[in-house]
Amino acid sequence: MAFEFEITAIDPQSGARIGRFHTPHGTIPTPVFAPVGTQATVKALKPTDLKALGASLILSNTYHLYLRPGDELIRDLGGLHQFMGWDGPILTDSGGFQVFSLSDSRKIDADGVTFKSHLDGSSHRFTPEKSVAIQENLGADIIMAFDECPPPTDYDYVKSSLARTHPWLLRCLEAKTRDDQALFGIVQGGIFPELREESARFMIELDLPGYAIGGLAVGETKGEMYSTLDTLNPILPKGKPRYLMGVGAPEDVINGILRGVDIFDCVMPTRIARNGSAFVKGGRLNLRNAQFAKDPAPVDSSCTCYTCTTFSRAYIRHLVKANEILGHILLTTHNVHFLIDLVEKSHEAIRQGVFRQFAADFLKHYPPA
Amino acid sequence: MAFEFEITAIDPQSGARIGRFHTPHGTIPTPVFAPVGTQATVKALKPTDLKALGASLILSNTYHLYLRPGDELIRDLGGLHQFMGWDGPILTDSGGFQVFSLSDSRKIDADGVTFKSHLDGSSHRFTPEKSVAIQENLGADIIMAFDECPPPTDYDYVKSSLARTHPWLLRCLEAKTRDDQALFGIVQGGIFPELREESARFMIELDLPGYAIGGLAVGETKGEMYSTLDTLNPILPKGKPRYLMGVGAPEDVINGILRGVDIFDCVMPTRIARNGSAFVKGGRLNLRNAQFAKDPAPVDSSCTCYTCTTFSRAYIRHLVKANEILGHILLTTHNVHFLIDLVEKSHEAIRQGVFRQFAADFLKHYPPA
Repeated sequence: MAFEFEITAIDPQSGARIGRFHTPHGTIPTPVFAPVGTQATVKALKPTDLKALGASLILSNTYHLYLRPGDELIRDLGGLHQFMGWDGPILTDSGGFQVFSLSDSRKIDADGVTFKSHLDGSSHRFTPEKSVAIQENLGADIIMAFDECPPPTDYDYVKSSLARTHPWLLRCLEAKTRDDQALFGIVQGGIFPELREESARFMIELDLPGYAIGGLAVGETKGEMYSTLDTLNPILPKGKPRYLMGVGAPEDVINGILRGVDIFDCVMPTRIARNGSAFVKGGRLNLRNAQFAKDPAPVDSSCTCYTCTTFSRAYIRHLVKANEILGHILLTTHNVHFLIDLVEKSHEAIRQGVFRQFAADFLKHYPPA
Repeated sequence: MAFEFEITAIDPQSGARIGRFHTPHGTIPTPVFAPVGTQATVKALKPTDLKALGASLILSNTYHLYLRPGDELIRDLGGLHQFMGWDGPILTDSGGFQVFSLSDSRKIDADGVTFKSHLDGSSHRFTPEKSVAIQENLGADIIMAFDECPPPTDYDYVKSSLARTHPWLLRCLEAKTRDDQALFGIVQGGIFPELREESARFMIELDLPGYAIGGLAVGETKGEMYSTLDTLNPILPKGKPRYLMGVGAPEDVINGILRGVDIFDCVMPTRIARNGSAFVKGGRLNLRNAQFAKDPAPVDSSCTCYTCTTFSRAYIRHLVKANEILGHILLTTHNVHFLIDLVEKSHEAIRQGVFRQFAADFLKHYPPA
């Protein structure tokens, strides 16, 4: 049944859980890492590549698709799934994060946000109703409430922002017409436990199909991020999926799963790939470095992805230095595999009831938060 | 047996033939179109993609690989097949064409060519011996003689150039040490039948494993190109593969097969893809055009490639306009498929003895030469 969320196992020590979230385009095994396809394509990967990598959910961006090629065009061509050739579950954001990021070219009022396009400077306006209308045109399985993502450590601003974000959620719910899309609320509140709790309690009352945790990984420390997750973990309803927005650093994914998060997304694996970097346990390898020029080893000798089982660091470095598209493709393949594989191994550790140890073993390669 | 060439069928009307050329890395069914991997990668495609497209031979460039990452580095990493993750047959050019193209920054003498790198302006020298040494380091299955590619319509220059190119071929043969590589000679002579015949007769005496036809598609008319092929078709030995260098426009491939050519290569399918263009019968589609903005049809409705069976022109146009890597990937996939598929259909037409009609049906979509 669409949007049913089943929890199939809980790790007894940490409370981390695995489950299945059913959507009209298929079932998402959780926890899940969703690669980001900003402009209706996960950069450098074909849909078949994503399937082969085990991706079960991808994210796309309302702001970008609204501007180009246009949400009505996508609707007329059968919706985003058809348009981009991806028949699995899709999540769209609300456009809020992107327009608020246009710091110099947007103006917020109680009703919405007026902003200038980064493409041509033209003027546009998003309201909760507009965001929902765009997302209905796009037709993703999971759509997001239009909210403000405030600077996380500015108490007064965050508090006043909640007074905008909460009414906007009600307007999104009111505006929504499609029953084949699940609208998630976005809990805000910066790094302040009482504001996070206030925001969560407001949304829980609405009995939404899922709850996102917004406003993190935007400037606060990792300790503050994890502490915010600790605040919300006992408050958010266990029976609904929790989505930590924009977070995908490997150590944050593990820390999120430890704190009851089910869904993650992040541009990091695709973005660092285009800069020539690869995830390895404990950090990243910058393949531009001269030290890899003659290195016959794979990017990550413990990795089973196509890139690591086929090519040397020397070859990848050559591609990166020569600015070859294949360099982007192979590093993206590895980085997306790295996160999906990490999440799949987490599933297994939760199933076996050893996730706390699994997490500790993984996190010891990273600096403490 | 390596480098044996078997002809398996001849079209009775045209004399076009299909065959099998055996190399240490596998058998090449001929005629064959070889995608070009200038810098040890066919731009935007993984080796597995090339296999899926039916590629059986790829080309790579001595000049580029010598400069970056260096042929000795590739040798030390196990050779080009290992380096680029392609276990099928590879052909390398001699570097001659590229260095002669550096018109302002190279100097030719009887012994070789001194040139400046396009990457950093550093000075280098290629001789026949050096070209063979580099190609032995790279380790391709088919390697090419170091020759000069002269302006095809300048009789005096072409004649004097042959006096350099022919001794260079002898020096290449003398320098060659590996018996797991077939060295092809390159018949030059511009658009002049008597010079072409002179060059061909010189090389046939040497009983080479294959004969390339060089110096075409470099400024002469299509009529002059085809007429040159008509000159060489009865002269070149039937039992050896003939390789028409740098030619891959669809109409030229069909005209080449009609005139007994077995091997083609060209950057065109990959290059025009990066400019947003797709081969269709009779010409090209420029996907940047506004007329495709809302077009739900595939690039080519008669095409069976992944791109055409999955995506609309509107989507491809969106990718191209947004400068997304997937646009390059999908158009490259289509264009390489287009040529390989055309060659495979030619095989079938030759097998059935109807290639002349097949060629006429295809060529009627193109302007006469």
